[in-house]
Amino acid sequence: MNITSKSSFFRKVISTIFNRYYSSPSLTKVTLENGIQTITLSDPKTRNALSIAMMQELINNIKQNEQNQQLRVIVIASEGPVFSAGHNMKELLPESGRELHEKVFNVSSDLMMSIIESPVPIIAKVDGLAAAAGCQLVAQCDMAICTDISKFSTPGAQFGIFCSTPGIPIARSVQKMTALKMLFTGLPITAQEAKESGLVSIVCRKEAINEELKKITTAIIAKSRSVIELGKHFYYRQIQHGIKDAYRLGSTTMVDNINLKDGQEGIKSFIEKRKANWSHTFN
Amino acid sequence: MNITSKSSFFRKVISTIFNRYYSSPSLTKVTLENGIQTITLSDPKTRNALSIAMMQELINNIKQNEQNQQLRVIVIASEGPVFSAGHNMKELLPESGRELHEKVFNVSSDLMMSIIESPVPIIAKVDGLAAAAGCQLVAQCDMAICTDISKFSTPGAQFGIFCSTPGIPIARSVQKMTALKMLFTGLPITAQEAKESGLVSIVCRKEAINEELKKITTAIIAKSRSVIELGKHFYYRQIQHGIKDAYRLGSTTMVDNINLKDGQEGIKSFIEKRKANWSHTFN
Amino acid sequence: MNITSKSSFFRKVISTIFNRYYSSPSLTKVTLENGIQTITLSDPKTRNALSIAMMQELINNIKQNEQNQQLRVIVIASEGPVFSAGHNMKELLPESGRELHEKVFNVSSDLMMSIIESPVPIIAKVDGLAAAAGCQLVAQCDMAICTDISKFSTPGAQFGIFCSTPGIPIARSVQKMTALKMLFTGLPITAQEAKESGLVSIVCRKEAINEELKKITTAIIAKSRSVIELGKHFYYRQIQHGIKDAYRLGSTTMVDNINLKDGQEGIKSFIEKRKANWSHTFN
Repeated sequence: MNITSKSSFFRKVISTIFNRYYSSPSLTKVTLENGIQTITLSDPKTRNALSIAMMQELINNIKQNEQNQQLRVIVIASEGPVFSAGHNMKELLPESGRELHEKVFNVSSDLMMSIIESPVPIIAKVDGLAAAAGCQLVAQCDMAICTDISKFSTPGAQFGIFCSTPGIPIARSVQKMTALKMLFTGLPITAQEAKESGLVSIVCRKEAINEELKKITTAIIAKSRSVIELGKHFYYRQIQHGIKDAYRLGSTTMVDNINLKDGQEGIKSFIEKRKANWSHTFN
Repeated sequence: MNITSKSSFFRKVISTIFNRYYSSPSLTKVTLENGIQTITLSDPKTRNALSIAMMQELINNIKQNEQNQQLRVIVIASEGPVFSAGHNMKELLPESGRELHEKVFNVSSDLMMSIIESPVPIIAKVDGLAAAAGCQLVAQCDMAICTDISKFSTPGAQFGIFCSTPGIPIARSVQKMTALKMLFTGLPITAQEAKESGLVSIVCRKEAINEELKKITTAIIAKSRSVIELGKHFYYRQIQHGIKDAYRLGSTTMVDNINLKDGQEGIKSFIEKRKANWSHTFN
Repeated sequence: MNITSKSSFFRKVISTIFNRYYSSPSLTKVTLENGIQTITLSDPKTRNALSIAMMQELINNIKQNEQNQQLRVIVIASEGPVFSAGHNMKELLPESGRELHEKVFNVSSDLMMSIIESPVPIIAKVDGLAAAAGCQLVAQCDMAICTDISKFSTPGAQFGIFCSTPGIPIARSVQKMTALKMLFTGLPITAQEAKESGLVSIVCRKEAINEELKKITTAIIAKSRSVIELGKHFYYRQIQHGIKDAYRLGSTTMVDNINLKDGQEGIKSFIEKRKANWSHTFN
């Protein structure tokens, strides 16, 4: 057994023991521990640029454990002072050709839809600058937590490319008057402004971010995976309907939920004042 | 005259004298005074659970004075430390059967739609915890005022039933990043966070809540009932349209409004610098 | 050359020299300087009422330089203590007739749509009260900046005419619980509340408003006019779609943007670390 295969073997053992999976050396680092899959953008020299390769990796990472009941929540974190500076500008050069440009935005849309379609909540953990498609990634996540030194901007127009696609999830989470200020000026907003305008769920000091994140992930992990999945998918489905139709769909969703094994277990355990014993299935 | 009919007679007299109506002994207490119908959730031993009976009563209370010109605004208040803890979990037990579960959510949707369809503004007055369907009730009201010790949560997933239907009005009043944090974690948010994220209109100290509420109700009562009704219904209608269609509908609504008796009286009284004399009708 | 034509000639010279255009004496004052067209509501004796004449002038002013590449941003400002008190009530009198009422709201809708359709960002600069249709005008702008003494209200129902059309852009920028409080009560909200609830982008002290505004306009002017136009129009288009369709449209928009002359110049200048040299065209 040579060093490589030895190390690979060693990794496998660790994985099995600690229920932790490492991806192959790449633009991201991935761990799955205690139900939390952390995907760390690890290309600080490009300021974690969302190149096609990076986005494809993110999609793969988001999807890889979809069927794995151990997966309960995904955190997207980063290395270096920049969460992500957005698309790789080199892939958008004129000489790259229209076909490559189309690929960039198609893969980007696939990444965004993979967040919505993921069965588990996805949380952006931001410590630093999230710009352009990097800001889009944050806005598209289900939740976002950031340190108080973090900044958010959509400076595309500065480089001749308006942040049109970043504006899609931003328009759906941030107040219009702040969203358009960001998009037209490219000027950054502070973490506090991001919280006030709706871009992030929580702002905290750097020292506190792991603790704050833990409160969120612990709360999610205490619940049934299938119940959370059903709820997440219903949330994104119903907001696209008028209120009356949303309620009509909602009634069915609730009744289906109750009749899940975990719906029944949840109520029984509540009545019996004991801890629920989730199956995490759709039975 | 036996005791019952005597008491009934006595009640009638009181009603007439004080223009105040009491409902029969029930899960709610209802008064109508000076145009304000206050519906008080009065089942603190169940933490004001929204059982089918409670929801049906709320619907009846909301609808009972719909044609009564004396009715100008509805306040939904509560007794005890909990505004409402949500649905009655017993009605959601597996053994209650799918039919009863369907009834719970159909009646719940009817309750929510009755708030939207009511001709008068409906205000939630919250002092304490509003959880799950209790939080939904607050979010569905046209306005909400709460004390600074109040808390809001959607902990359904904790009991195996994701707060899918509560998420419907929450998604329409609360910033996404806070809404999903509430729905996925079940953790409560404070009154202040509720104000910041859009869940309530006003936060104040307990001592001030009646005074703050009075400012709101006095302002509403000073206006024409029919003008408020027309405006409320247009608001909920137009948000379901694109902006251009909304403006098209808006022009017609405004012209119809002006040509109401109270539209004309309002403008005349403004020009003549005198108090308006409303008819409260749709003439 | 008589005095009038002399003055007209003199004006023309000034215009040419300073790249500044004055409109004929009217309800508004208009300047175009350094890319910024400032339209000042200048009818303080009517509290800058949005009469048909005033609205028609605003539309003309907004549209007059649409094809002029010098135009980069529009600021709507005001003279006097009131930004605008809303429609001219005299035009809404019963004796004015249904036809005139229809005209008021059709012209008003045209004004609002002209803001959305303008190729450049439109910023409301508010120092004082913005009420009824005056508040609508602020809410419909792409951005709004106001002094800390400013107030905002939709008191129509007080005068028998619910602020139904003002509610259209307010519902799209302000949190529901604040929007409905404003619409039902007519009570004013402060500048701070306006910021918190989403009605304005920036609040600052009176002394700072020009400086704050300059940061915004300078940032806009540094960019390509055509890129900003494309981005603005996409923003308002995509929010009317479901997220998946929005992303589908977004990919095309981004690729089209890159293939604009200014898209290519932007990226090249970024890579080459030099200032971009915009054409401001749609080539």
